[in-house]
Amino acid sequence: VAENKSIVPNGRIRVAVDAMGGDYAPQEIVKGAVLAAEKDDVEVFLVGTTNILEQELAKCKVTNGSSIHIVGASDVIKENESPVDVIRRKPNCSVAIAAKMVKSGEADALLSAGSTAAAAISAIQFIGMVDGAYRPALVGSLGSFAPNTVMVDLGANVDCKPHQFLAFAIAGSVYAKKFLNIADPKIALLSTGSEESKGNDAVREAYSLLKSSGLNFVGNIEGSDILNGKANVIVCDGFVGNILLKFYESIGGHAQVWTERKLKKYPPLRALVRLLFKRLFPATKISSETEKAGGGILWGVDGVVKIAHGASRAPQIANAIESAKEAVNAGVVESLRLELAKFDQGGKL
Amino acid sequence: VAENKSIVPNGRIRVAVDAMGGDYAPQEIVKGAVLAAEKDDVEVFLVGTTNILEQELAKCKVTNGSSIHIVGASDVIKENESPVDVIRRKPNCSVAIAAKMVKSGEADALLSAGSTAAAAISAIQFIGMVDGAYRPALVGSLGSFAPNTVMVDLGANVDCKPHQFLAFAIAGSVYAKKFLNIADPKIALLSTGSEESKGNDAVREAYSLLKSSGLNFVGNIEGSDILNGKANVIVCDGFVGNILLKFYESIGGHAQVWTERKLKKYPPLRALVRLLFKRLFPATKISSETEKAGGGILWGVDGVVKIAHGASRAPQIANAIESAKEAVNAGVVESLRLELAKFDQGGKL
Repeated sequence: VAENKSIVPNGRIRVAVDAMGGDYAPQEIVKGAVLAAEKDDVEVFLVGTTNILEQELAKCKVTNGSSIHIVGASDVIKENESPVDVIRRKPNCSVAIAAKMVKSGEADALLSAGSTAAAAISAIQFIGMVDGAYRPALVGSLGSFAPNTVMVDLGANVDCKPHQFLAFAIAGSVYAKKFLNIADPKIALLSTGSEESKGNDAVREAYSLLKSSGLNFVGNIEGSDILNGKANVIVCDGFVGNILLKFYESIGGHAQVWTERKLKKYPPLRALVRLLFKRLFPATKISSETEKAGGGILWGVDGVVKIAHGASRAPQIANAIESAKEAVNAGVVESLRLELAKFDQGGKL
Repeated sequence: VAENKSIVPNGRIRVAVDAMGGDYAPQEIVKGAVLAAEKDDVEVFLVGTTNILEQELAKCKVTNGSSIHIVGASDVIKENESPVDVIRRKPNCSVAIAAKMVKSGEADALLSAGSTAAAAISAIQFIGMVDGAYRPALVGSLGSFAPNTVMVDLGANVDCKPHQFLAFAIAGSVYAKKFLNIADPKIALLSTGSEESKGNDAVREAYSLLKSSGLNFVGNIEGSDILNGKANVIVCDGFVGNILLKFYESIGGHAQVWTERKLKKYPPLRALVRLLFKRLFPATKISSETEKAGGGILWGVDGVVKIAHGASRAPQIANAIESAKEAVNAGVVESLRLELAKFDQGGKL
């Protein structure tokens, strides 16, 4: 039986933060937690080596001390340790302790800027998956060019089995309903052509599954359709999703460099173009947009687990805590559970 | 023993053109052939239904009649016929006849704007593959943003075996040497991270093969590295390559629409941006650039087989004939044969 994690004693959402994970941990993680705790609706549990966290916290100007707590973790993950081994060998590292807090109901959400694999393994092992979801998946919005479209999986799963595509479609649907306010999201498979026969083996099998799923499946779309709004939920293997997202995020910068180089003999025009890029073109905006709301959540875990970029500094950590809170308030896990149950009982997952 | 196809009686390159394939066939194909034949270094064989082609040719202003010939094809492919079946059932359709002309030495190259699958099957069946190449692959330049980079495979092969990635790397290398004048092209695998352990099963196995191949293999690159020049040859599965290329080609248009919408209250600025997009940003340029030189060639076939876009009109057909000629003159098939032989004898392919 699932615990009802969204009802908390004082109405505040409690986020367990892996204070030891991330390129700038623990300093920036602690600072970000202090920033986030300035709002009254969140309580932060910094999980890590107690004396280090106390020192870092002492450096901060804490305005809302009652909302920040330190939770000791006796194990410390070292660089270059394999995430698969480390969680087995160090079950009391910070991210594992944070996951256990979500399981026990001491926290409503987990946030980590450390290794995604370590967070995913901790989540699977200590929190568990919702019935019908086999492994965590990443869903992300495509930002300004396609404000009504999300893509899933963005990199958590490679070599996917056809039934995983169905689970991705359901997770993407919940995201589109909850965070984009789309009542009946159109779901499409990303492939090499619109015909059912196009694509690789996994995609062709997934097509049959999705067609008979009862979901609002609109068929295959091609690479040229990703941004044109034909689909609200684009389903793909995490190998493809990861490469596409990183490619997409890189293009704005290349376009700017290329355009400015072309205009080097026309300084006023170049300055204008630079301004246009800065103000208008989502060169670097896309990646930060995917951070919001349902972005960076490990979909399918039986609790809200939020992954922040490894390079996050205090403001990004504060944003991530805020959006973990929103995900809890939106009830994403319960919604996913209900949707998956429909298919799980039909034996489709 | 391979015939030496680049030495032709009158010094002209002879291109067998599938006159019945393409959205605007045969009219635009015939017109394009007439355009191409205005140059003295090419001879065009229009393959198709004789009386139809004679009628179309009669409508054109032919300035160089001795360079244009009609070759009759008794079978006609109808829309919606499966390419796999059709070549078996209709071995005298235009694209099959054109392929046979390349095999017999009556032509130096084949050009088709019809079904890529039909052209590929005709090529495999009637021309055959170079030793070590199993199936045709598509190599394409990434255009202005990454002028020294090609990607392979762009869509001819899905569900690739690891050894195919090695063959792709070799084809891409020949392309980069011949058409980009890069002496020792850097080869990379497209994956989800730079470490050898990253990626899906096929990519991880291909990594080992490429590392021990003796090629100038620089490791994995991520989606964010595609346009930054880290690699001259980016090797990927045709499923990924097809989706990425179509996505890439679509972005310029989306960026323009989005930017103009943002500027709708500032007509002069919007007009300027429209001009900038038209003149500077390769919104639609990318796809036409991949048409050039080695783009659109079925790499691995034992003869030059060039695929033009289905929507090609006369000028594009003339360009494609011109670039098929360049590919013959560059000796791409012979170069690929020599490179593949090194690896084939080592038992790696």
